Amino acid sequence: MEANRVYNFNPGPATLPLEVLKQAQEELLNFSGSGMSIMEISHRAKEYDAVHNQAKEDIKELMGLGSDYDVLFIQGGASMQFAMVPMNFAAADKKGNYVLSGSFASKAYKEAEIQGVGTVAASSKDNDFRNIPKQNELKISADASYLHVCYNNTIYGTEYHYIPETNGIPLVADMSSDMLSRPLDFSKFSLIYAGVQKNLGPAGVTIVVAKKSFIENSPENIPTMLRYNTYSQKNSLYNTPPAFCIYMVGKVASWLKRQGGLTAIAERNAKKASLLYDVIDSSSGFYKGHAEKDSRSFMNVTFRLPTEELEAKFIAEAKDNKLCGIKGHRSVGGLRASIYNAMSYDGVKCLTDFMEQFQTANK
Amino acid sequence: MEANRVYNFNPGPATLPLEVLKQAQEELLNFSGSGMSIMEISHRAKEYDAVHNQAKEDIKELMGLGSDYDVLFIQGGASMQFAMVPMNFAAADKKGNYVLSGSFASKAYKEAEIQGVGTVAASSKDNDFRNIPKQNELKISADASYLHVCYNNTIYGTEYHYIPETNGIPLVADMSSDMLSRPLDFSKFSLIYAGVQKNLGPAGVTIVVAKKSFIENSPENIPTMLRYNTYSQKNSLYNTPPAFCIYMVGKVASWLKRQGGLTAIAERNAKKASLLYDVIDSSSGFYKGHAEKDSRSFMNVTFRLPTEELEAKFIAEAKDNKLCGIKGHRSVGGLRASIYNAMSYDGVKCLTDFMEQFQTANK
Repeated sequence: MEANRVYNFNPGPATLPLEVLKQAQEELLNFSGSGMSIMEISHRAKEYDAVHNQAKEDIKELMGLGSDYDVLFIQGGASMQFAMVPMNFAAADKKGNYVLSGSFASKAYKEAEIQGVGTVAASSKDNDFRNIPKQNELKISADASYLHVCYNNTIYGTEYHYIPETNGIPLVADMSSDMLSRPLDFSKFSLIYAGVQKNLGPAGVTIVVAKKSFIENSPENIPTMLRYNTYSQKNSLYNTPPAFCIYMVGKVASWLKRQGGLTAIAERNAKKASLLYDVIDSSSGFYKGHAEKDSRSFMNVTFRLPTEELEAKFIAEAKDNKLCGIKGHRSVGGLRASIYNAMSYDGVKCLTDFMEQFQTANK
Repeated sequence: MEANRVYNFNPGPATLPLEVLKQAQEELLNFSGSGMSIMEISHRAKEYDAVHNQAKEDIKELMGLGSDYDVLFIQGGASMQFAMVPMNFAAADKKGNYVLSGSFASKAYKEAEIQGVGTVAASSKDNDFRNIPKQNELKISADASYLHVCYNNTIYGTEYHYIPETNGIPLVADMSSDMLSRPLDFSKFSLIYAGVQKNLGPAGVTIVVAKKSFIENSPENIPTMLRYNTYSQKNSLYNTPPAFCIYMVGKVASWLKRQGGLTAIAERNAKKASLLYDVIDSSSGFYKGHAEKDSRSFMNVTFRLPTEELEAKFIAEAKDNKLCGIKGHRSVGGLRASIYNAMSYDGVKCLTDFMEQFQTANK
């Protein structure tokens, strides 16, 4: 670990690759010989254009997608997507179908409900969102305009380990907390979105990866900035994009390629998650995972200690050991270690070493 | 000028105070002793909270506004505000009234039209948007839900030099390109918004300053992220805000305070604008301003040369002299010098010196 830095297990905004931060720092006053910061360059200038288009290309390359898909940069976070998806695709007679697997999945459904165009395909709420509903539990409406899933549930620490079969109904996924963390057959999805502040960059831009044929006809009676085709037709440059955030996303995508792409990063992510889950599972119940084993997330590892006092003590002592951002979300309590792409194996190893010491000292 | 930097006359994204960029650069890997970049810190953490709230306070202090006003941070740029304003305030029987003084003012009206809730109070389109409609030209509907004006027209180089009297109808202003450039009686406005990428920070956040009583009741049938009261009730933290952009805006606001606030910056801005307009007016017609004199902007100085060939030559030679971003918008042609708060007097002086030399060499 770099001097003065900590291991940052925040759920988002989250740790970024140090290499990327250093590059940004080095060129912050003068980007690419322009004599300007990347923050000061026109979004119509060739220097910015190169950054913007390279980021799009790298994301598509990492995902293994072809020219039938487009990458859009939209503002407002996943929460804005919760509203845009039903506005663009659902109608009173062709509702959006939602799987409720956690807090953000439920918020997405709520936005469809506000528009009167949402139905529920499955829910794990009665199980405190400890699991991802299985394929055979999904009651997909035959006339649904799409099936919406939240692929990784940051708060509860659960993640899909299968791609839902929808029988031709377009599949829409919120991948805010696991986008580009592992290879998937992304061509099975019609639209994927991700607020980048967990795995891909600083808060302020949402990546939308969508099948062109799915987004080419947005309704004309909704605001220009809420139509997907505004972004696809204008290369996400209808108005000034959040250029610095896109620049950082581009640097992260490029870093991911240098790491060996999604296959290599997925391997590292699996190793990191195993380290943590193994310590939990071999703790004789001192550490208790929140998620059911077959729904466990590779990105957010949620667990409890025997008492809330011990949890508070754990958080305080972890911080003294430069292990930060480990407190769980208030709706689950306990601890949560977010171990996104940019968290190193060494960081997780430091955490599991600390967990073992803490257990020995406090059991 | 710093070595390797240029004078940047871009209309937006635009030049930022060098001092601010250097601060950001210095603490980019470790903000406030946290061991994390400001980009990696949770938006619920105390370190970020302090940044967020200080930025809000400084903006209100600079504007001389009290506790009856709130400052909101919203994503999507002014273009998203074009849609949110009518969605929140207008209705079929209580339309929004628009003054069309340029391209963005017209786009704002267009979004109200999409919703079927816009009317026109005045337009200077027939005059190629060379002027701001005068008070006695405004036909304000007695039953309008608001009067919308674009206070500075970046593309045409015009700016309001009076605050419209609306007889009690709420006044809404897009101040994207002159926000915090001079003191005004801001209490006459019910809502002011500004994409920050011209005068206040990097692209990616829009500041909304609004009377609390005006925004407390947003319609419940519109998406959560498009309701102003979502932002006011949640301190703009309903979801993850564009934290880095807000952090930069806070640094710019603090810099503005150190410059002496709006009175001092307005004085400097007036001097800079005078330098440029004086060279134009004393050029015996070699340089021709686009805007009518009584509507001239302090922020964007638009002018033409005798021929397009000379304009191209001017742009190229200016660039060789490290005077960049001077090309006019395609809808007006010619040249445009954007001289926002962060542009120094020295930068403008270099430009006017160059203009005089260029005229001598090419007249």
